[in-house]
Amino acid sequence: MNMSHSARARERLVVIGGDAAGMSAASQARRLRGPDELEIVAFERGHFSSFSACGIPYWVGGDVPERDRLIARSPEEHRARDIDLRMRTEVVEIDFAGARVRARDVDSGAESWTSYDKLVVATGARPIRPDLPGIDAPGVHGVQTLDDGQALLDTLSATAGRRAVVVGAGYIGVEMAEALINRGYEVTVVNRGKEPMSTLDPDMGRLVHRAMEGMGITMVDDAEVTKLLTGDDGRVRAVATADAEYPADVVVLGIGVRPETDLAKAAGLPLGDHGGLLTDLSMRVRGHENIWAGGDCVEVLDLVSGRERHIPLGTHANKHGQIIGANIGGGYATFPGVVGTAVSKVCDLEIARTGLREKDARRVGLQYETVTIESTSRAGYYPGSTPMTVKMLAERRTGRLLGVQIVGREGAGKRVDIAAVALTAGMTAEQMTTLDLGYAPPFSPVWDPILVAARKAVAAVRSGAS
Amino acid sequence: MNMSHSARARERLVVIGGDAAGMSAASQARRLRGPDELEIVAFERGHFSSFSACGIPYWVGGDVPERDRLIARSPEEHRARDIDLRMRTEVVEIDFAGARVRARDVDSGAESWTSYDKLVVATGARPIRPDLPGIDAPGVHGVQTLDDGQALLDTLSATAGRRAVVVGAGYIGVEMAEALINRGYEVTVVNRGKEPMSTLDPDMGRLVHRAMEGMGITMVDDAEVTKLLTGDDGRVRAVATADAEYPADVVVLGIGVRPETDLAKAAGLPLGDHGGLLTDLSMRVRGHENIWAGGDCVEVLDLVSGRERHIPLGTHANKHGQIIGANIGGGYATFPGVVGTAVSKVCDLEIARTGLREKDARRVGLQYETVTIESTSRAGYYPGSTPMTVKMLAERRTGRLLGVQIVGREGAGKRVDIAAVALTAGMTAEQMTTLDLGYAPPFSPVWDPILVAARKAVAAVRSGAS
Repeated sequence: MNMSHSARARERLVVIGGDAAGMSAASQARRLRGPDELEIVAFERGHFSSFSACGIPYWVGGDVPERDRLIARSPEEHRARDIDLRMRTEVVEIDFAGARVRARDVDSGAESWTSYDKLVVATGARPIRPDLPGIDAPGVHGVQTLDDGQALLDTLSATAGRRAVVVGAGYIGVEMAEALINRGYEVTVVNRGKEPMSTLDPDMGRLVHRAMEGMGITMVDDAEVTKLLTGDDGRVRAVATADAEYPADVVVLGIGVRPETDLAKAAGLPLGDHGGLLTDLSMRVRGHENIWAGGDCVEVLDLVSGRERHIPLGTHANKHGQIIGANIGGGYATFPGVVGTAVSKVCDLEIARTGLREKDARRVGLQYETVTIESTSRAGYYPGSTPMTVKMLAERRTGRLLGVQIVGREGAGKRVDIAAVALTAGMTAEQMTTLDLGYAPPFSPVWDPILVAARKAVAAVRSGAS
Repeated sequence: MNMSHSARARERLVVIGGDAAGMSAASQARRLRGPDELEIVAFERGHFSSFSACGIPYWVGGDVPERDRLIARSPEEHRARDIDLRMRTEVVEIDFAGARVRARDVDSGAESWTSYDKLVVATGARPIRPDLPGIDAPGVHGVQTLDDGQALLDTLSATAGRRAVVVGAGYIGVEMAEALINRGYEVTVVNRGKEPMSTLDPDMGRLVHRAMEGMGITMVDDAEVTKLLTGDDGRVRAVATADAEYPADVVVLGIGVRPETDLAKAAGLPLGDHGGLLTDLSMRVRGHENIWAGGDCVEVLDLVSGRERHIPLGTHANKHGQIIGANIGGGYATFPGVVGTAVSKVCDLEIARTGLREKDARRVGLQYETVTIESTSRAGYYPGSTPMTVKMLAERRTGRLLGVQIVGREGAGKRVDIAAVALTAGMTAEQMTTLDLGYAPPFSPVWDPILVAARKAVAAVRSGAS
């Protein structure tokens, strides 16, 4: 390619994917480099840009009154910032030898090539949709996009029956269970794992199981869905497992997602064991000087295990985008990795985790002690004090913190941040016992539950010393 | 002294002060060493052991229905654990050359000497009670002990008038303002500082001022109380400053406390600039092999400034006691210091701080950048999301975190723990920008307010780089 001086002076950034990672990258790059220096073209195959997928359960459940509240920035707002965002336009090929992408207008099918100087791959993730009989029947819904959410709401308002089955009991599954409870449905959650919330150890998942049953949700664990049964009208009427059938007027799939990397794979970009793109610390795709990737389509380094993981989460996607944009814009920023923090809720139950579960620790050869303690969210005598269970894993002998899981009510979830920072800093349980955490009766017992767990972990490490 | 072998085999631990630090030390020592090995004698001059002074405002305000809920462990419970706790008995002299203490029965005046092998000084703090005309008039109350709390409640129930004046606007003052609001009083807070909550920088204190005014509390800042005026009945009727008089049916003093170290000073034990005992990292009094001290009567090392401070707080007292007890019991534990975390609330306003204020930083020669950001407790679209202001100090050039202050509503206060752990770990603002904090719409915006502040601090450090 022969570039003139003027063409070289004005680079073109192409962004594939108009959601959190892609548009954060575009916005941050634009902040640092004006339109005279950097042209930005972004392609989004869907109808919406920069929306909060994490908010969909709350929109479906009625806590968020309207869809547009979930849109952080509309295509028009992006365009007003000199970002040429082309909606309903899917990139179908990356030609990195030619430094160009081929894009297709989703509605007309028209295709064209766009060259780039720098490329951001932010193609996100796609929901796992098992190849089961009946999976495409009317009344069966995913909840990945705003279009999915609208379709589900349309089904709910058009359906007289009040029986809902949620397939999957990860965070999307439990949040959708809450949403449907809030809508007045009888909810059954069918879950392949031994307990709900497989991001927790089973003993902590058991607490979630019990609490959800206490909310009137029917919990079916250890059950693989074999098919979705349809009625004479073709609509879904039940979810079947090997052992039973669960009548359903509506079915929500919350099975999880996979990195959307077919395009990257076809282009020969490097993928990891979980199917996500592999990047360096600056979020540059490994081996590709001018290609960055971030958000739900990449794998991230788990700082505790030292292994790559796939963690689709808006907060990571936003950080990735900001870092990519800074680097493209001539700044410098890196994403060191994650410790695996997650928090979710089902009605008033708060569920949080960070670091490694027991099986994660075993998988990477770490030996550990575990302790589980009961404490309260506030001083025991203070009104509204609620029970909280904290499980802590600390490395055998060294006592280094490996992970924390929390199940409780108000005030339980965000306490996991204490452990997330301690994990990032590589603290031992013993160092944690003297952490200077905020104390006043409305906020904490005099020993914060995290401190109680740390003290018990120290004792376990000491008594297990050998 | 000539000790027989059997006497040497059974040591005697004497504890001065039967509250958090002293009784935690006694209890932990007892856990590690049985009565055959260690005799434990504890002296408490008051009526109560192991009570939560921090809970008094909530008892006075009616959130805690009865006094005994604030008692963590009664004298009888301590005695059942083979701790010889002698109530209403004040130690009036420490003779460390003779390894003995002289104790006086508060009611009878009878005195006796008790020898010790190991001594714990946990004499706590006493409220500052300025020498003002009228300070001892009926209707003027401190709130340090359960007896104080009961006396205040008795006054409230015997007084028809509904005008209360709180002197002082630190955490005790603002908590008492809430308590009196809850009891239906018209509350005026008279405060010497330019703004309430002098533990915050004035710009953040201003937010507290405004919020308290919004609650209907009359805030009088920058006003030194000159006297308390009494009526014909001898009871308090007003609080006077140089400029004005504030009518009062009841006055609550929340001016703060000083280390209660007269006894230690008379014995020649080492005191610091704030009048508190000085200890080493094992909580041993400096220069005294067999004497430990902890709780509100000691100074603690501030890990951020490298200076000693006096921070009377139940959570530190409990940690000190546990550490002292472990060391006396033959174990090993240390208290590395504090970062100065505190959290409090006034009605639904949450106030938190950790690390250094601007003036603290200047005092120790640190240069810094400050940023203040507005964010929300939850995703903006999620119900119940409330505004939150976060101020962050980062060191000039290095960007090391120096302090965080937060004023907001539900969910604001305990977020300070993130910064407390980051301070303990010596993180920079830049390291904090990639912290893996719990995110879900009911818990946080996609960028947690602490991350937003950290990002802005990074920019400030960078633009101030020189």
